[in-house]
Amino acid sequence: MPDPSSQASAAEGVYLDWRRRERCGFAEVVYGEGKSVDALRAILAEYAAKQEDALVTRIDPEAAQTLLAELPAARHNAVARVLRLPAEATLAKQGRVAVVTAGTTDRGVAEEAVETLDWMGVQTLLVQDVGVAGPHRLLERLPEFRHSDAVVVVAGMEGALPSVVGGHLACPVIAVPTSVGYGANFGGLSALLGMLNSCASNVAVVNIDAGFRGGYLAGLIALRAVTPERFAPAPSQENQA
Amino acid sequence: MPDPSSQASAAEGVYLDWRRRERCGFAEVVYGEGKSVDALRAILAEYAAKQEDALVTRIDPEAAQTLLAELPAARHNAVARVLRLPAEATLAKQGRVAVVTAGTTDRGVAEEAVETLDWMGVQTLLVQDVGVAGPHRLLERLPEFRHSDAVVVVAGMEGALPSVVGGHLACPVIAVPTSVGYGANFGGLSALLGMLNSCASNVAVVNIDAGFRGGYLAGLIALRAVTPERFAPAPSQENQA
Amino acid sequence: MPDPSSQASAAEGVYLDWRRRERCGFAEVVYGEGKSVDALRAILAEYAAKQEDALVTRIDPEAAQTLLAELPAARHNAVARVLRLPAEATLAKQGRVAVVTAGTTDRGVAEEAVETLDWMGVQTLLVQDVGVAGPHRLLERLPEFRHSDAVVVVAGMEGALPSVVGGHLACPVIAVPTSVGYGANFGGLSALLGMLNSCASNVAVVNIDAGFRGGYLAGLIALRAVTPERFAPAPSQENQA
Amino acid sequence: MPDPSSQASAAEGVYLDWRRRERCGFAEVVYGEGKSVDALRAILAEYAAKQEDALVTRIDPEAAQTLLAELPAARHNAVARVLRLPAEATLAKQGRVAVVTAGTTDRGVAEEAVETLDWMGVQTLLVQDVGVAGPHRLLERLPEFRHSDAVVVVAGMEGALPSVVGGHLACPVIAVPTSVGYGANFGGLSALLGMLNSCASNVAVVNIDAGFRGGYLAGLIALRAVTPERFAPAPSQENQA
Amino acid sequence: MPDPSSQASAAEGVYLDWRRRERCGFAEVVYGEGKSVDALRAILAEYAAKQEDALVTRIDPEAAQTLLAELPAARHNAVARVLRLPAEATLAKQGRVAVVTAGTTDRGVAEEAVETLDWMGVQTLLVQDVGVAGPHRLLERLPEFRHSDAVVVVAGMEGALPSVVGGHLACPVIAVPTSVGYGANFGGLSALLGMLNSCASNVAVVNIDAGFRGGYLAGLIALRAVTPERFAPAPSQENQA
Amino acid sequence: MPDPSSQASAAEGVYLDWRRRERCGFAEVVYGEGKSVDALRAILAEYAAKQEDALVTRIDPEAAQTLLAELPAARHNAVARVLRLPAEATLAKQGRVAVVTAGTTDRGVAEEAVETLDWMGVQTLLVQDVGVAGPHRLLERLPEFRHSDAVVVVAGMEGALPSVVGGHLACPVIAVPTSVGYGANFGGLSALLGMLNSCASNVAVVNIDAGFRGGYLAGLIALRAVTPERFAPAPSQENQA
Amino acid sequence: MPDPSSQASAAEGVYLDWRRRERCGFAEVVYGEGKSVDALRAILAEYAAKQEDALVTRIDPEAAQTLLAELPAARHNAVARVLRLPAEATLAKQGRVAVVTAGTTDRGVAEEAVETLDWMGVQTLLVQDVGVAGPHRLLERLPEFRHSDAVVVVAGMEGALPSVVGGHLACPVIAVPTSVGYGANFGGLSALLGMLNSCASNVAVVNIDAGFRGGYLAGLIALRAVTPERFAPAPSQENQA
Amino acid sequence: MPDPSSQASAAEGVYLDWRRRERCGFAEVVYGEGKSVDALRAILAEYAAKQEDALVTRIDPEAAQTLLAELPAARHNAVARVLRLPAEATLAKQGRVAVVTAGTTDRGVAEEAVETLDWMGVQTLLVQDVGVAGPHRLLERLPEFRHSDAVVVVAGMEGALPSVVGGHLACPVIAVPTSVGYGANFGGLSALLGMLNSCASNVAVVNIDAGFRGGYLAGLIALRAVTPERFAPAPSQENQA
Repeated sequence: MPDPSSQASAAEGVYLDWRRRERCGFAEVVYGEGKSVDALRAILAEYAAKQEDALVTRIDPEAAQTLLAELPAARHNAVARVLRLPAEATLAKQGRVAVVTAGTTDRGVAEEAVETLDWMGVQTLLVQDVGVAGPHRLLERLPEFRHSDAVVVVAGMEGALPSVVGGHLACPVIAVPTSVGYGANFGGLSALLGMLNSCASNVAVVNIDAGFRGGYLAGLIALRAVTPERFAPAPSQENQA
Repeated sequence: MPDPSSQASAAEGVYLDWRRRERCGFAEVVYGEGKSVDALRAILAEYAAKQEDALVTRIDPEAAQTLLAELPAARHNAVARVLRLPAEATLAKQGRVAVVTAGTTDRGVAEEAVETLDWMGVQTLLVQDVGVAGPHRLLERLPEFRHSDAVVVVAGMEGALPSVVGGHLACPVIAVPTSVGYGANFGGLSALLGMLNSCASNVAVVNIDAGFRGGYLAGLIALRAVTPERFAPAPSQENQA
Repeated sequence: MPDPSSQASAAEGVYLDWRRRERCGFAEVVYGEGKSVDALRAILAEYAAKQEDALVTRIDPEAAQTLLAELPAARHNAVARVLRLPAEATLAKQGRVAVVTAGTTDRGVAEEAVETLDWMGVQTLLVQDVGVAGPHRLLERLPEFRHSDAVVVVAGMEGALPSVVGGHLACPVIAVPTSVGYGANFGGLSALLGMLNSCASNVAVVNIDAGFRGGYLAGLIALRAVTPERFAPAPSQENQA
Repeated sequence: MPDPSSQASAAEGVYLDWRRRERCGFAEVVYGEGKSVDALRAILAEYAAKQEDALVTRIDPEAAQTLLAELPAARHNAVARVLRLPAEATLAKQGRVAVVTAGTTDRGVAEEAVETLDWMGVQTLLVQDVGVAGPHRLLERLPEFRHSDAVVVVAGMEGALPSVVGGHLACPVIAVPTSVGYGANFGGLSALLGMLNSCASNVAVVNIDAGFRGGYLAGLIALRAVTPERFAPAPSQENQA
Repeated sequence: MPDPSSQASAAEGVYLDWRRRERCGFAEVVYGEGKSVDALRAILAEYAAKQEDALVTRIDPEAAQTLLAELPAARHNAVARVLRLPAEATLAKQGRVAVVTAGTTDRGVAEEAVETLDWMGVQTLLVQDVGVAGPHRLLERLPEFRHSDAVVVVAGMEGALPSVVGGHLACPVIAVPTSVGYGANFGGLSALLGMLNSCASNVAVVNIDAGFRGGYLAGLIALRAVTPERFAPAPSQENQA
Repeated sequence: MPDPSSQASAAEGVYLDWRRRERCGFAEVVYGEGKSVDALRAILAEYAAKQEDALVTRIDPEAAQTLLAELPAARHNAVARVLRLPAEATLAKQGRVAVVTAGTTDRGVAEEAVETLDWMGVQTLLVQDVGVAGPHRLLERLPEFRHSDAVVVVAGMEGALPSVVGGHLACPVIAVPTSVGYGANFGGLSALLGMLNSCASNVAVVNIDAGFRGGYLAGLIALRAVTPERFAPAPSQENQA
Repeated sequence: MPDPSSQASAAEGVYLDWRRRERCGFAEVVYGEGKSVDALRAILAEYAAKQEDALVTRIDPEAAQTLLAELPAARHNAVARVLRLPAEATLAKQGRVAVVTAGTTDRGVAEEAVETLDWMGVQTLLVQDVGVAGPHRLLERLPEFRHSDAVVVVAGMEGALPSVVGGHLACPVIAVPTSVGYGANFGGLSALLGMLNSCASNVAVVNIDAGFRGGYLAGLIALRAVTPERFAPAPSQENQA
Repeated sequence: MPDPSSQASAAEGVYLDWRRRERCGFAEVVYGEGKSVDALRAILAEYAAKQEDALVTRIDPEAAQTLLAELPAARHNAVARVLRLPAEATLAKQGRVAVVTAGTTDRGVAEEAVETLDWMGVQTLLVQDVGVAGPHRLLERLPEFRHSDAVVVVAGMEGALPSVVGGHLACPVIAVPTSVGYGANFGGLSALLGMLNSCASNVAVVNIDAGFRGGYLAGLIALRAVTPERFAPAPSQENQA
């Protein structure tokens, strides 16, 4: 007999991919944009029933307030536009990822990355406002995160920070361009192209404003470094396509 | 007194970054495009003098033939446009990276990634021609590389393969868009945008045709997974900016 | 003497193309965007007078509510932004078209396609949320629509689903890119370019968010397959340009 | 034991998708761009061994001459850049597709569509040089192809012809934009955008200069109209994903 | 001593170019976008003082209502977003210009052209909703405007109508692309590129939604045809740069 | 019985629009790009047989040399890439059009406009190298062409010259952007956008490098000003669509 | 012990670069976009504590009103979107910079430049509404600013004014494109490309709508011309990187 | 009587702007692209006759060789694509400008800037290969050019170097993007957008690959700093427009 909560979310055409943990190591993260409160409520009930930690990104502030009133165990980070249930991650923290921003207005995207890493059970350090126009700021803080397993660099405008950070480090750098800027920024295009053309060899790029994606990739890299055995395929996967 | 070989390459304004191994874990890779045979000869002499393995990417075929005639220990992979000196990597292979292509014409970019990984001392598997229009081809070969520490996916046209591969795996996927295609491909733009908008959470992207970059990032991830101690900062780095 | 309803709609410069059924097999569909309630009321009266089923797409929600209150025989699908008069198609259903979506937020565009096919008298199946990041979902549902005469695939982000669906099927696939996504999606450009560069041979593309267009083309294909005699030109057309 | 010809083509990473006929109704068409003469020779041998008709598109003229000298049963259409083996299709012609061009320079793309349709066993009519600036030309020839099951319209510059043709007909129109033009044509972008925004409801679009794609889709539509039973899935497909 | 009204408008940095009639044949038209009611009031007073007919384009609806209440001699065309003072042109009508639209939603831009021509003293005919998907509509109405001195064609989406109109006529066609459409229309880019690449030789193009510009150019052409002596340079212009 | 020359050109799919003079006032101009010498020879024979002056634009230099050797009455302007047959226009010159260039490298496009006007029987004046960076140059030459019926302004780079010329004159200005420039010129895009956004009201724009189009429109305007009776529709056109 | 105000602004990740005066000659200017009133209040307190003049650009109007009520010494220029504290610059004026606009709607950007120059202690002249369509306006006012040390030219639409101004002057011209315009202006792209392709040698460009940047660069140039000794590096900078 | 050399260059529509020194402080620089050897020879003769130093940029290598053979006093810098006559500047050097490059392949553009500055009589320092991926390289060399009056920064790929340089200096930075790179570099677009969006306040931008423009602006700034009296307008300019 189908699970009633699953039916509720399915009514909006949302079918959760419950096999993802098995294939990909983590449960599905819920993309909140465009989903109704009813759909989100049903989805969160499915997660609770399966005893999975839920992470909802890009949640509408009003939807978050409604759900928070109903779910005392949840937590809402309004800057990151993220809802967490339960409020704290149930995993012990492992690995080290720094999330570095160029300017103040990049903070929302950076916090989405931090929340994602926290949900994955990765230890994070947020290093803010070290853009390249004030070069001493990065150099002062570099010792704090030189030991990272991966670094997420969040920057808008010309998107130069990942190249500079990448030139100082041996670990992979996940560059997240933001739409912060104006004029010839063209909605983040300037930062995106800058990062794709980075002269530092250790820089990979994700979509504009994709804080979740940046955090998720850095988290995969860091956890692989500390607990590679975790990523051995499940036996059930071995013999099937 | 300056090294004569360094003076020769410096005559063209090429100053090699010999501190990069210390900062970033690997020596600099030589970007061959636009460099004269004279400059490349001088650069290779510097590498030999420092006993560093040299990797030259995007080398002009004629320049490669001239240098091969002079340097019997070198090797030229014409498909990858790569010159190696010495011909074989001196490092034992560690870690596992699969390099997967969508179609035949993506092969040159894929081989540049393979050569880079080989130079880094990473074990590689090349899986060719498993584009999404023939869905059984990927499923048949998936078991061969499900254990990878990272996967490089090389694809042109619509660039859909990284999403499909990413949906099957737990490891990071480095997507390399290629300029293979015609018309509304716009020199690789279609594949690049497709990969940046991938719905799979574990996909990061590098520049169009950037086989070296894709291989290098996958190699960093794989080596960190098997020998994390290698990436501890050198003591000399600890106390400086 | 001119028909009063025609005069009313003509006051806004709307001249309905009543010869379209003769030339093209179906009456004109009304594009609701930017049309006033007065113009739509007059247009619907013209359809009623001619005993034609009316389909209004992209109708403003408030305009739809006003008209519904006046026209009890009408029906409004708010998700699809479609108004139907009469509420149910008067034609028996023929042919088989599946409308397949990658994600939840593609649903509005998909329902516009379904409503269009329903109006044309074509039997439809809506298959939701089978995007490529969860590969088993598509494979599970493929048997349900492998017999289709045509398939409409609705997807945003990287637009990879039409290629994957196309690789499994022998029928034409009409790909409808959506503006669902953010950042380097650029209003649907990423999905559009991905679909135009599809490596599957049986994929044709329509405009971004063009659910009506996708449904209409699939409907033409399906009906031609079941009742080709219907599409023989009317004798009155034979001898004129 | 592997087929030697298959090994030869596999040496370049070309793995033919011999299950495509079963899934998609037709064998794979060979995309000739970037393939060596050696690879093409091996591929054609595989087709001959399997008794499949081979169609190679976008073949290099010199490669075609070399292969023609070796394969007397083949035929080369230099305008279409197509190689056929055997020279004539082995199927009886069914269905009716018109291929219509706006101007003289669109002819190569149109002939690629005609060759594809011929290979599929579809009857074709080529209607050339009926662009919209000379409106009587189209009207004069319309009666010749009003009965078509599908029409392929090939046009560069402003790409207006599919809209005009579509407004006269009840069948699906597959629009193929070409890169013919200069200046603000931007390599076919003007024609592509024009066709995507067509105000005629029955127009679907394929990639710029994609004559093969245009012909293939029109052929699928036409054959479905005349022999729908052909497209029933093979029993072997019924029970598998 | 400076004119007080001129000072008022100058306070916002608006300096009217009162020599334009002398140089260019017509007084300056006021671009209303972004101008305050105070600035517009002062500008209109300057026109009244100089006994020039004033035409304000792209006026904000609320600003127009405020000014109408104060200036009983003025007239506001809300669809065209135009304010006229005095309400009717003081010139006898000369020359013939047709303003032709593809669809209903192009009407606002077309009316801006009509108002401009009326202000210039040119006789106009508005021909609406004759887009190319209903080909008989244009052919039916062509005789009404075949005698025009110039034709303004207003169209969005694929922008094909100017090519078709141009192919039927000997007079210059001024094509005005509109931002009407969605998706790959990209704010009017599709219509703009289509018109720039028109295969009809007598088509020139103005900016997207530039109804004023389209009307103004057509008016210059028509008036030159009927009263060429009017355009002889003023003697005062003969001897200066 | 068909005309043999027409058959020859038809062999390449070229069907000349011999009714164009009747509809549009001038015979068709031959677009030479991509046409073979054989096709051009046959086309020129058709013109000669019909006693029409022929103008071939964008002719390949080698094709032109071959044809010149065969046709002593022809003339080739290599800078304009134009072939004329007969060498001189048979019409007396009427009307006045100035063709103005910003810089030296715009000359080829300007000469194409001059040749077109000459073929139409319009009197021309070529004013070269008066770009805006040397402002006195334009002011010195303005008196020479202030009396023009229309002005063609040819400019690359920022495309500012049409605005400046337009601000001085009462006649229509046809702006022809050229692909002259480098870097952010993007193949003429900078000049094209500049001209479309011109703040001068009397500027219309044609395609990049479209010297023929610019000259043709200016010629239509000028001839209408001097001989409006010429453009009265032929009686045969009056009663047909 | 940390300064409490610094802690308050740091709470939002804003770390002021107090070494900038030492490195770059001027204190940091505060970019107001996206900063809360609380953060701005704390930042202004830091400036007051350090006895630095503060300049806040792109401030939200409501935030400005709130802060003005609290800080009687401040001043708000609503057109420029700038807040100054103290209201008047404490420096004597030196050097001469003209800020020139093409049209009325460019005024806000121009005033941002003027406020910046005023804050730097540079003497300014604002010359408005001298766009190229009224050529005499610029020529009349040129003598007023021919002596400038640098000129800022602010223009939207086709962005032609910097080229024309540059052609008259010997000093550097800083061109500021604005997003003023519509249609093919594409948010300022037309003006930006026009200015980048300027044919005048003395024109450099900054971002779209970047009034602050334009003023700052012109100010640096002007001050260097009058007080070059000011820009000698501080001794503390001499011996460090 | 006209100067014969002037007639020769005028034959190609080249009219030198001999008043530019008076207006702009320097004689016109010759843009060599697209000019024939005959035109260049005539132009150089005009310069010699007027006793002006000539600088030809973007000269074709073969044209340069031909002219060098005829003009022993000339010099050709093949890397910069510049021809100088006489070979050495006749002015004593004043002011200090550093020209800084990110990578080896930016050298040609940088040398064009150096040659321009040398021709202007400005002292230059070329600092090569200090791109941001090797951060110590810039810091090591910064003391050499911290005293500059202006700095030209030449960089391709992500164009990050001007931001980093600008953050260290008080003087204006003229950023020159180059087309060096591949893939998503899009012909220099990535570097251009990066530089336009620079977070350093003292960065202005010129066109892609515009070495001459970068050098010229930096030279104007430097000379104004050392000899401001030089830039006082000539008395002859005072009283005219």
